[in-house]
Amino acid sequence: MHRTAAPHVVVIGGGFAGLTAARGLADAAEDRPLRVTLVDRRNHHTFQPLLYQVATSGLQPQDVGHPLRPIFGLRRLSRRGTAVDVRLGEVTGVDRDRRVVHLDDGDELAYDHLVVAAGARTSDFGLPGVAEHGFGLKSLNEALALRDHVLRRFEHAANHPQSIAEGELTFVVAGGGPTGVELAGALAELVDDVLSRDHPHLDLRRVRIVLLEAADRLLGAFHERSSAHALRALRRRGVEVRLNTALERAEADHVVLGDGTRIPTKTLVWVAGVRAEGLAEHLGAETTRGGRVVVTPTLRLPDDPAVHVIGDVAGAPDGDGGLLPQLAPVAIQQGRYVAARIAADLDGAPDDTPFRYVDKGTMATIGRHDAVAELPFGIRFGGFPAWVSWLGLHLLFLVGFRNRIAVFLSWMWNYLTYDRAARLILQAPRSTGPRDAPAPAP
Amino acid sequence: MHRTAAPHVVVIGGGFAGLTAARGLADAAEDRPLRVTLVDRRNHHTFQPLLYQVATSGLQPQDVGHPLRPIFGLRRLSRRGTAVDVRLGEVTGVDRDRRVVHLDDGDELAYDHLVVAAGARTSDFGLPGVAEHGFGLKSLNEALALRDHVLRRFEHAANHPQSIAEGELTFVVAGGGPTGVELAGALAELVDDVLSRDHPHLDLRRVRIVLLEAADRLLGAFHERSSAHALRALRRRGVEVRLNTALERAEADHVVLGDGTRIPTKTLVWVAGVRAEGLAEHLGAETTRGGRVVVTPTLRLPDDPAVHVIGDVAGAPDGDGGLLPQLAPVAIQQGRYVAARIAADLDGAPDDTPFRYVDKGTMATIGRHDAVAELPFGIRFGGFPAWVSWLGLHLLFLVGFRNRIAVFLSWMWNYLTYDRAARLILQAPRSTGPRDAPAPAP
Repeated sequence: MHRTAAPHVVVIGGGFAGLTAARGLADAAEDRPLRVTLVDRRNHHTFQPLLYQVATSGLQPQDVGHPLRPIFGLRRLSRRGTAVDVRLGEVTGVDRDRRVVHLDDGDELAYDHLVVAAGARTSDFGLPGVAEHGFGLKSLNEALALRDHVLRRFEHAANHPQSIAEGELTFVVAGGGPTGVELAGALAELVDDVLSRDHPHLDLRRVRIVLLEAADRLLGAFHERSSAHALRALRRRGVEVRLNTALERAEADHVVLGDGTRIPTKTLVWVAGVRAEGLAEHLGAETTRGGRVVVTPTLRLPDDPAVHVIGDVAGAPDGDGGLLPQLAPVAIQQGRYVAARIAADLDGAPDDTPFRYVDKGTMATIGRHDAVAELPFGIRFGGFPAWVSWLGLHLLFLVGFRNRIAVFLSWMWNYLTYDRAARLILQAPRSTGPRDAPAPAP
Repeated sequence: MHRTAAPHVVVIGGGFAGLTAARGLADAAEDRPLRVTLVDRRNHHTFQPLLYQVATSGLQPQDVGHPLRPIFGLRRLSRRGTAVDVRLGEVTGVDRDRRVVHLDDGDELAYDHLVVAAGARTSDFGLPGVAEHGFGLKSLNEALALRDHVLRRFEHAANHPQSIAEGELTFVVAGGGPTGVELAGALAELVDDVLSRDHPHLDLRRVRIVLLEAADRLLGAFHERSSAHALRALRRRGVEVRLNTALERAEADHVVLGDGTRIPTKTLVWVAGVRAEGLAEHLGAETTRGGRVVVTPTLRLPDDPAVHVIGDVAGAPDGDGGLLPQLAPVAIQQGRYVAARIAADLDGAPDDTPFRYVDKGTMATIGRHDAVAELPFGIRFGGFPAWVSWLGLHLLFLVGFRNRIAVFLSWMWNYLTYDRAARLILQAPRSTGPRDAPAPAP
């Protein structure tokens, strides 16, 4: 309908990678004829690093999700007219010969350049019962389902104290990476600060938060001293951390660990792994372990330079024979990179400088006044300074001025009052597993 | 479990009536032995007058819903220990002989006094198709379902402009009372201020907002001049108001009006009527039209002074041979009234002064800078002063300091930026009708 002579770039996915790429392309469209369409199956960007705070009633969905359309609203007013269009839909196929993307409602989008930034979803690695009984934490829907479920467990235990012995108040978090550490810490705070006041009749010493990690330390991507710091801090907050312990299988009312231990629980949160969204087969592309698409050092398909793959779905070489980690900073830098490369291609001056990830550091928060942070050149710090840095950086990376203000105010409120105002039970009890159902066609 | 010698008052329902009664009883418990249990099938109070703003993306769920437990949190710290307990559950029966309330999980609650404040739900008056295809607006779930549905319609129309002729962007609101007027006005603003920017390719002149009213004027409970003001204001904002027009039936893709007109639409909002929650049969009590429980002038069951019925579920005499209206101010005043009467009963000094509703006025807002307000003694005003009064009064009546601040800030943001930040599509497309599914047992 809006077909013009201007080259058309289709970006699949509105996460960190796709959103950054689309923004870069919108900038590029100021100086050259270029149209951009951003396709996502959701109408909003999800700030995944804070989903665990939605799950623990600390933030509201809207604080962490930002509608995609208004992000490009101002671009529409630029002198070249519409630069970025947003399309709600699920990609069902890519025809690279015809250069066309197929959508679930039967429509087709023709492209000159394609940027695949479809992200990753929770993977159960085929462990029995995890898909049926585990909660994931990759979307707002998953976070809200977990929030409702946790709050319901306390309501149920308040009315049926005998259920506590059957694991009603036992919360098992599988995966000791940043998400697992942050979620376990936030759950401990939710119980200590908030639910203890909500449920004065409950003996909350019987609450168990169990964090499972298959390796011999938490935060495997961090320095060992940060791992030790996180371990101490979580244990001090009452979290049972079990290292060298894998999950064997999950049932509705218990989980079984690798060493045969059976833990009665109705709540398993699975944050132990992701796999790339299943777009590789649509692309007819080679994949790595975890379903990531094999790309060249310039983040293109080896046999098709018009297709760029970035973010969690890309298996980009790290220069040392491995793959780059599936992290937000990688996705953001890759988004900027491909936007610049596509602009150069369009200008007839292709630039084959390989993508190079600049590691600016990593952080994970454990709870009030405590976090671990690692910067380049071996700079590490923890405790209060790391916690404040964590807060500031996350505010900075949030999309949208309003969300920054809202999250800042919510954090102030939670900090000063030890409250979590978002503890509303809104949904029917869960019946699905951690694999988020794809948002249906509109 | 917590059974003691202190008399036990069970309050069914945490809306305006039940919440006010429970708060009054908590105050009374400072001076006399008294235990209170508030039962609700949701874990939060819902500020129903602002649900339409959730449905139109102006407010977040948490702004309008307040968890019930913390409302009584401070009471728990009073010198008498726990005064109010909150119980999540659905009442399935009342045994007035044994003075016991049955809950859906099989538990029983024994009472000395029972306060029934179960509220009202959407009623379709048996009109064909309304239950299947209409949206109600009595709970957060209903408001969120409508929000998602409306936003989806615009996404769909953006991708399939031919669907506009089939009613994709036609929104029919049935019921010209305050809720219908406010919703129609807010929908018009959402389209003009926000969706026009989100969807620059859509011809939004083709959006139709149709407000149906069976009587010959809007806002039947108001003065005729307020009705005329609302009619003019809505028409100026592009709302098609059809007076003297009833809905005949609803189908998935159209509605049929009483005069035979067929309007293609995928969105029918039914705010034309409520009926009392179905507790009357559990009580074995006589009911009025609309399922309301017949009560004495002291708001008790005629044959059982231990059972008090208040709020929307009560059919209380208005002194003129009619019934009091189902409004928040009536519910709040009745809540205060029964708390005082129960305290008097417990003190052995029963007070049989009949309940008298003091009408302090009514208001309805139409949109930015416009509302109608009516005070006692024939004082009426409209436009900007009424709008500011409406904003202030609603902030005042919101439950909780945090919610007041949050709503105030959201309103400021929406006002200054013409934005509606809460326009997230989170749920799967609807498959249920306006009758909100009862919140399942935990």
